[in-house]
Amino acid sequence: MFFVRVNMTDRTFKVEETPAAYKYLGGRGLTSNVIANEVSPLCHALGPNNKLVFSPGILTGTSAPTSARISIGGKSPLTGGIKESNAGTSWAADLGVMNIQGLVIEGQPAEKGQYWGISVIWDGKPKVEFFDATQYTGKVLSEIYPAMYAKFSDKVSVCSIGMAAEHGYSNSGVVFNDMKKRPTRYSGRGGLGAVMASKGLKFIVLNRAGAPGMQIVDKALFEEGRKEMISALRTHAVTKPKGALNSYGTAVLINILNEAGGLPTRNFSSGRFKGAPMIAGEAIFESNKTRKGKEVYNHSCSPGCIIQCSNTVYDAQGEEITSCLEYESAWSLGADCEIDNLDDVALMNALCNDYGLDTIETGTTIAVAMEAGVIPFGDSKGAINLIHEMGKGTPQGRILGAGTATTGRVYGMTRVPVVKGQSMPAYEPRAIKGIGITYATSTMGADHTAGYTIAPEIMGVMGKQDPLSSEGKAALSRAFQATTAFLDSTGHCLFIAFAILDIASGYQGMVDEINGVFGTSWTAEDILKQGGDILKVERKFNEEAGIGKEADRVPEFMKTEPLPPHNTVFDVSDDTLDSVFGEL
Amino acid sequence: MFFVRVNMTDRTFKVEETPAAYKYLGGRGLTSNVIANEVSPLCHALGPNNKLVFSPGILTGTSAPTSARISIGGKSPLTGGIKESNAGTSWAADLGVMNIQGLVIEGQPAEKGQYWGISVIWDGKPKVEFFDATQYTGKVLSEIYPAMYAKFSDKVSVCSIGMAAEHGYSNSGVVFNDMKKRPTRYSGRGGLGAVMASKGLKFIVLNRAGAPGMQIVDKALFEEGRKEMISALRTHAVTKPKGALNSYGTAVLINILNEAGGLPTRNFSSGRFKGAPMIAGEAIFESNKTRKGKEVYNHSCSPGCIIQCSNTVYDAQGEEITSCLEYESAWSLGADCEIDNLDDVALMNALCNDYGLDTIETGTTIAVAMEAGVIPFGDSKGAINLIHEMGKGTPQGRILGAGTATTGRVYGMTRVPVVKGQSMPAYEPRAIKGIGITYATSTMGADHTAGYTIAPEIMGVMGKQDPLSSEGKAALSRAFQATTAFLDSTGHCLFIAFAILDIASGYQGMVDEINGVFGTSWTAEDILKQGGDILKVERKFNEEAGIGKEADRVPEFMKTEPLPPHNTVFDVSDDTLDSVFGEL
Repeated sequence: MFFVRVNMTDRTFKVEETPAAYKYLGGRGLTSNVIANEVSPLCHALGPNNKLVFSPGILTGTSAPTSARISIGGKSPLTGGIKESNAGTSWAADLGVMNIQGLVIEGQPAEKGQYWGISVIWDGKPKVEFFDATQYTGKVLSEIYPAMYAKFSDKVSVCSIGMAAEHGYSNSGVVFNDMKKRPTRYSGRGGLGAVMASKGLKFIVLNRAGAPGMQIVDKALFEEGRKEMISALRTHAVTKPKGALNSYGTAVLINILNEAGGLPTRNFSSGRFKGAPMIAGEAIFESNKTRKGKEVYNHSCSPGCIIQCSNTVYDAQGEEITSCLEYESAWSLGADCEIDNLDDVALMNALCNDYGLDTIETGTTIAVAMEAGVIPFGDSKGAINLIHEMGKGTPQGRILGAGTATTGRVYGMTRVPVVKGQSMPAYEPRAIKGIGITYATSTMGADHTAGYTIAPEIMGVMGKQDPLSSEGKAALSRAFQATTAFLDSTGHCLFIAFAILDIASGYQGMVDEINGVFGTSWTAEDILKQGGDILKVERKFNEEAGIGKEADRVPEFMKTEPLPPHNTVFDVSDDTLDSVFGEL
Repeated sequence: MFFVRVNMTDRTFKVEETPAAYKYLGGRGLTSNVIANEVSPLCHALGPNNKLVFSPGILTGTSAPTSARISIGGKSPLTGGIKESNAGTSWAADLGVMNIQGLVIEGQPAEKGQYWGISVIWDGKPKVEFFDATQYTGKVLSEIYPAMYAKFSDKVSVCSIGMAAEHGYSNSGVVFNDMKKRPTRYSGRGGLGAVMASKGLKFIVLNRAGAPGMQIVDKALFEEGRKEMISALRTHAVTKPKGALNSYGTAVLINILNEAGGLPTRNFSSGRFKGAPMIAGEAIFESNKTRKGKEVYNHSCSPGCIIQCSNTVYDAQGEEITSCLEYESAWSLGADCEIDNLDDVALMNALCNDYGLDTIETGTTIAVAMEAGVIPFGDSKGAINLIHEMGKGTPQGRILGAGTATTGRVYGMTRVPVVKGQSMPAYEPRAIKGIGITYATSTMGADHTAGYTIAPEIMGVMGKQDPLSSEGKAALSRAFQATTAFLDSTGHCLFIAFAILDIASGYQGMVDEINGVFGTSWTAEDILKQGGDILKVERKFNEEAGIGKEADRVPEFMKTEPLPPHNTVFDVSDDTLDSVFGEL
């Protein structure tokens, strides 16, 4: 396997064997270790000394199901700490197939406003070619993606950044193609798009033609594991064909969280939204059925995914508005802004994709701006206009593009739902204590994917736990955070967790897949330990960046303002929060 | 002595004897201790749980020369840490005369956008009366100050906040009247204006009529000390009548720092500004002489000051443009923005005073915006317009009003001269290492007044030290920071330091003044220890607010970009920075 280092200061590259220390790492495990080893925690995230590391998961590029995730690591301009953000895309699989374990973008051009693209091809080993990309800047992504396929071939995979990143926004993602070559699969959180832009890098095009594919040391073991994984995914109610995710997408959670009183509404001032059913996964399914004249089940975001949870939202004419509208996006652009018009929410999602914005941060930011009086709550046309302002880079747009925390500061607001500068996703800490502990203590800032305790607290995976109780939740969050850090290293989508946490043979399947690839004999305990080790590396980076345990806290208003309908506050003590990593 | 507590939640007040623990504290010593004892370090600075504490210095209200400083303490919305900001004004003396050692503003009204004023009178003890002040909001301070004098009497002193504070800006000060009843004396740094605004408090009017005056335990000792202090101030070249400060004001430093290559220019990209002589104290003196037809010496900002360093800048018609234009303001609004038009710089200063903005933060913010391309460097008319935008609260103005760090983030800039979120004043760390150590390690964020090593490094006070060397500068900064923390507690202006550090009898005079007031027998060593104790209290608050030693650093660009003309970087090691407080 190879490490490819691209230096954007002088537009040169270097291909080397993967360093021995990184041999058994992939995805988040690899990106976080490279960043921790090579980036000064106090460097400016948009300066020449930050790096951007792309790594496919350990299984990415193999035939393991639902395993085509790409991890990106860097110092985050949003949180100031370490960041790993991942996405599912053929781009990830291609990197694996080309045996590129780490793609490291370094340096910074002296020229401001000039952009390049790189094309990575297989020529006995990976080879990098540079091309001028300045002409593609200042345009929406749906316009420039076809140009890349026309320029290179329809067999390539394409990674890029949008105008949000060009503006230097802390709320700007890195985008990858989906299965229909649309620029829609995002490593959205934490502003890594702006890091890529700061390096003058607009595109990374992968052409896998001629590449050897992933090596698997013990093919029999791998196959055995893979079959168990497939079986678990095809059996579990959440992940099976025509199951919850395949039918309703992740937005199936809207009604569930609303029912639980944990759907943050009107800038985190209520846990219940009366318009929730209008923007829920079921509503999308029904609307599509009417408009397309048939039931439309969801599709996969990346090759080899058998969960297939990505929806498409169609307009009254049966034309696509956006794909995919995730739960988090339907919530942030919908419920948190008190917007219940599905078509408008879908359009907002499409605009975020086109400008290169993180949908979660965008929605929570607009909600704070609504509370500040910029536009009224529920004003979907006003919200659409604000997203256009972000795209244009007007002063108003720039405020919002800097993210929720900055928008709160600029308007002097106190109800600002962020941890470590990153806005909270679609689960209310006051109504669901475990996820609040994850938000508070994650190395990533508020992040539901960092330790998704929603599985037991809301969905009953591994047995149902009371969301309103904090009893045992520190340990629960810790276990989920460590497991997730490893899952994010395998290349598997986090959604396999629903199945493999309920079905033990599925979990063992994952262990076997990995041992198959590496020829190792790791146990489930080894994996948990490795996940914990990744967290330690990330935690140390953050501490050296000045982000210590005092940053492992939810905002003050969540400790003082009771949240309807349960009228509870976030009553988890600081000692409990500190125990999450204290006992790692 | 009394503590007056005003609760803005229900508009009530309480008068009590000064608690025993605070008996020997005044100014910064008192405000920092009250904040540390009563405010949660992780509360929201603009929420109901922050407090604003006003305290006159130990000597304020007595006849000690140049001692009418008011300290304000609170959690800063700009830095997130503890903040003490002080100003010279009759308001401070009146608080002393009314025997109010601490005035504590607490709570927050439920009504947003509604404002009150309080009037404090003497009625056997202090008494607080509330009045509706909403009608005075949305107006410039020079318009509403006369209304207060008309409403109460021309004998009162007036504290207020401007539109910047009403907008919730992290860059908004608290203003006090000068000797001509103008709203020009600012506790400018750290956004305490927004804290006052968040409490719905627009005015604090003091009417000292009938108040008993300060008590002095040992009058003879006090008189002896006072005479030595006066003698030192009248002798030293910097502080004597028609000396440097009385003739040219603090802006006498422009040419001196420019000569030393330490005048930050063009957003901290050079240490020398070719337009420096046009905005220097000498230029102000000469311009005034021409325009007024006579030499105009400076005046005092507050009663009892014998240094009298406050200038007035007159226009071509001999009309006042602003008073006073300090060195820091002439630099930030001038050199740092590459503006050399004195009248325009004076107008910018007047606008900052009118809107309630900190001039230092305003200038450094505009300079960052200039580098981001919002307006060109040197565009004084554009800069004037930007200050008006800040006053109006437009999106552009709000970005700037949030301060230099936020403006840098909103525009994705890397050359952002801040420490702990507060912008650097008028001395370049790369050219003057001691002040850089103070900027980095001060509890206040970048703050020249926190440990003014410029005295030895540039002005030769206590013997000249090489500004380009970092040798011994950690110890120097530490000694200056501790001494200053005590000086800020006495009520004396920091400028007495020039005289008393060179003239030992003056220093002893200060000690005697204080022992005279309290009836104590403190030594110079006791004083240094007390200063160190204040820093410890502040440091602990900051640590609990998540501001640890990793925040005791200058921005990355100062360690990597050499500064002309000396072409030096800030080469002070992290260990040296950590030793400043490590050895406190």
